[in-house]
Amino acid sequence: MTTLSLNELAQRFGLTLVGEGHAEIRGVCALSPGAEGCISFLSNPRLRSQLTTTAAAAVIVGNRDVAALGAIPGLVAPDPYLAYARIAQLFDPDRAFTAGRHEAAVIADDAEVGEGCHVGALAVVEAGAKLGRGVFIGPHCHIGRGAVIGDGSRLISGVHIGARVRIGARSLFQAGAIVGSRGFGNARGPNGWEEVPQLGSVVIGDDVEVGANTCIDRGTIEDTVIEHGVRLDNLVQIAHNCHIGAHTAIAAGTGIAGSTRIGSRCMIGGACGITGHIEIADDVVLLGRTMVTGSIRAKGIYGSGMPMLEAREWRKTVARVRRLGRLEQRLKHVEKQLGAALSEDEEDGQDDV
Amino acid sequence: MTTLSLNELAQRFGLTLVGEGHAEIRGVCALSPGAEGCISFLSNPRLRSQLTTTAAAAVIVGNRDVAALGAIPGLVAPDPYLAYARIAQLFDPDRAFTAGRHEAAVIADDAEVGEGCHVGALAVVEAGAKLGRGVFIGPHCHIGRGAVIGDGSRLISGVHIGARVRIGARSLFQAGAIVGSRGFGNARGPNGWEEVPQLGSVVIGDDVEVGANTCIDRGTIEDTVIEHGVRLDNLVQIAHNCHIGAHTAIAAGTGIAGSTRIGSRCMIGGACGITGHIEIADDVVLLGRTMVTGSIRAKGIYGSGMPMLEAREWRKTVARVRRLGRLEQRLKHVEKQLGAALSEDEEDGQDDV
Amino acid sequence: MTTLSLNELAQRFGLTLVGEGHAEIRGVCALSPGAEGCISFLSNPRLRSQLTTTAAAAVIVGNRDVAALGAIPGLVAPDPYLAYARIAQLFDPDRAFTAGRHEAAVIADDAEVGEGCHVGALAVVEAGAKLGRGVFIGPHCHIGRGAVIGDGSRLISGVHIGARVRIGARSLFQAGAIVGSRGFGNARGPNGWEEVPQLGSVVIGDDVEVGANTCIDRGTIEDTVIEHGVRLDNLVQIAHNCHIGAHTAIAAGTGIAGSTRIGSRCMIGGACGITGHIEIADDVVLLGRTMVTGSIRAKGIYGSGMPMLEAREWRKTVARVRRLGRLEQRLKHVEKQLGAALSEDEEDGQDDV
Repeated sequence: MTTLSLNELAQRFGLTLVGEGHAEIRGVCALSPGAEGCISFLSNPRLRSQLTTTAAAAVIVGNRDVAALGAIPGLVAPDPYLAYARIAQLFDPDRAFTAGRHEAAVIADDAEVGEGCHVGALAVVEAGAKLGRGVFIGPHCHIGRGAVIGDGSRLISGVHIGARVRIGARSLFQAGAIVGSRGFGNARGPNGWEEVPQLGSVVIGDDVEVGANTCIDRGTIEDTVIEHGVRLDNLVQIAHNCHIGAHTAIAAGTGIAGSTRIGSRCMIGGACGITGHIEIADDVVLLGRTMVTGSIRAKGIYGSGMPMLEAREWRKTVARVRRLGRLEQRLKHVEKQLGAALSEDEEDGQDDV
Repeated sequence: MTTLSLNELAQRFGLTLVGEGHAEIRGVCALSPGAEGCISFLSNPRLRSQLTTTAAAAVIVGNRDVAALGAIPGLVAPDPYLAYARIAQLFDPDRAFTAGRHEAAVIADDAEVGEGCHVGALAVVEAGAKLGRGVFIGPHCHIGRGAVIGDGSRLISGVHIGARVRIGARSLFQAGAIVGSRGFGNARGPNGWEEVPQLGSVVIGDDVEVGANTCIDRGTIEDTVIEHGVRLDNLVQIAHNCHIGAHTAIAAGTGIAGSTRIGSRCMIGGACGITGHIEIADDVVLLGRTMVTGSIRAKGIYGSGMPMLEAREWRKTVARVRRLGRLEQRLKHVEKQLGAALSEDEEDGQDDV
Repeated sequence: MTTLSLNELAQRFGLTLVGEGHAEIRGVCALSPGAEGCISFLSNPRLRSQLTTTAAAAVIVGNRDVAALGAIPGLVAPDPYLAYARIAQLFDPDRAFTAGRHEAAVIADDAEVGEGCHVGALAVVEAGAKLGRGVFIGPHCHIGRGAVIGDGSRLISGVHIGARVRIGARSLFQAGAIVGSRGFGNARGPNGWEEVPQLGSVVIGDDVEVGANTCIDRGTIEDTVIEHGVRLDNLVQIAHNCHIGAHTAIAAGTGIAGSTRIGSRCMIGGACGITGHIEIADDVVLLGRTMVTGSIRAKGIYGSGMPMLEAREWRKTVARVRRLGRLEQRLKHVEKQLGAALSEDEEDGQDDV
């Protein structure tokens, strides 16, 4: 088990120590109730009072909360949550692995496996595939022909990487992720749908994460592109020819239709639906369950999800929405009687009746 | 092939036999058209007339329908559907398995495999994992380091159980289910997202079902918890730190964001979206496609899904909804002219214009 | 690498050659910018100007665009996109495979494997399963007991085919697809949910495609049926007892609840939700994110998705929708004052207040 003193943590991460630095830290914990020998963090000021009751051995705080530490030793960081994340990585028991090829892995003779790679039990690495240095391939992963995986990338379990897919360094693939499935391209023939071959591939940058059971389709002719630092949660669908800009994060259950281009640093909530062949600007935020049917040109926050009501009230609301055309007509009738239209633009209303 | 007489079924399940009990039953069937030698059930009174035409050898009915049986033998049960479910289990050809370890399974030397377990072809059981008695591990399943699986649980095929996950007795995992993937915890650093390690695990109770390709993320520090008797359908997403109360059922495609706590005996429809860090009371029913953005304190039925219209009418409806602010202004203008406001609270309307 | 002359392509596909036919074609490309030695197509007239700049060696066009070809050789086709799809299949590097059983595949002694089949590394074919001729079973696929797979069908990687599932000819299964998982049938017992065995299977026709991580549940008593030529995209959910008519296409993320019957040639957009026990007519089109809660009797286009607005405006819109009952009351009050109701049917409004 890893243990480090507070002093060592302060030094390693360039943080300022407050109080006694000899305590050995053996893990991380929540602020409430906290755990002996563990370090926690405070970034939400509303939780400040938990500093007085926590069992944590030390707490990472920002400058404004140093005084509130009281008798507890602390590490002062510009961004306590970020410092916590980095410290917690030291204590992650699932990060370390031993290099080597499991005897029950199936690795093609001409596949290249870099120094320090782990190829797990029952993994398949096909002909012409190239793994960089220190790549982790978990059990039941499948690396297709000619696929390239950069240094330090990790594939947890049962990940499918299709033929010719190219992945950068330090990217992380959760169990069941599928990269390079056939895009949904079909042409109508006289006897039904015919397959439009998807001859492009998928290119994924460095420091990307792809969630469990998430699917990224290969491009039709060009490649589907996921830029550096993108984070995809579980059960996300990225269709063929999409381009996701750097550092964009997409929460679980969101689907993006084909050939859509999303900017950098976007934050896309869960269960959003984004139509194909559009562009979304940089720094766009979509609230959960937003439906996007056209391009978004300006950064900003957008939404369209309808929050729940008690079911009886909701059913009445649906009925009222469906009566809106009638309501507009009734109001127009009243206005006419009064000679009282607020302005001349009420024809807008009539267009749609 | 299993066959049992009606007499035997009556005795084994404590049901009352009506009519001749010697008929051998070899399976179950639908009431219409029914099938020779098979038993069906009637619980929906609107289907009562099918009793006169069914080819079934016998029918399970409630007290109120005994008279309607006519010449068909019957078993009388307080809940015919429940009695049917239990009888049908006898005829399920996929339930039985033979104990043993497939020669092509990869089982760590120090993994514990209980009596009567089946470990299927190409399954992987990692170091320190413990399987109770009579556990079924299907082909291509992956049991991570130190994971614990209780007596009689069944993992059908390609199921991933992450490191240190703990599962109770008699739980059932459909193909492709993923338990213990990394939660979607990311901190913004100066060069992009940094991984917040997810050091908790997942704890699953007894008699739980997890559907095909459903994902349950591990907790950040504490565990994600699925209590006894929970039923999750396919393609459900349970994010890190969630707590799902006992006997709650969640239909396909629903996603629950992190740290949300759902009560017991809830019925959650398909494709619902539930935001993070909220609480939902016991016995809450959510209609399909409900969006929940805040805590639900009282049991009841809730909804927010908008049912479809013919597309042209729907597009007009969207336009009318977008004109609602204008409509409120126009009505206010009319009311002013009439000196006729229904009450003083119409400023509510103006707040938002 | 495959290469064919334009002459050969014209002959093989029955197309009319325009211009020089000796050029060797080595692949397909997009019209803009195009690629040397490759053939492209034009079907959208708005892209016609790209004919003057493309680097493509040849372009497939319709009759109306022959003149616009200029100096570029062309193939004239009644449907240029369809002709392109067929030509592109010649250049698909992932289509060809060599027959044979990988030494690390696990194939039951009594499984039947037809002529020309490929059974890949670490695939499992269980007892009584039957593969027709020329079937491709990729790595980590699992074919359950007694399942039948027709001639020329292809299972890419990690596909699960449950026991007794029957699949026709030339069907295609993307990575992670699951066919024949247990339907979500549960009966309430005195101590919680009890499993209702799902004793039916899944029957899939010829020329079907099932997308990555898509799930199709087995039927309760009868079979779940997917007719010929159906196309399912990724992450689709088809519940137990559904019947999907021939040549219907369903985009990613859509879920269909149990026992629903969908007609032929329907086009169902992404992330739609369709309730159980209903019927949808032939040739129905559902726009993306449509919610269907009742049967659709007539062909046509239907929708219910609400497109996004800027978040502040959207929040006001939600508030206005919730005030609709009040708005109706206020209008009714005004109408009474004016003695001016447009007609007598305004009671409709009051019903719901």
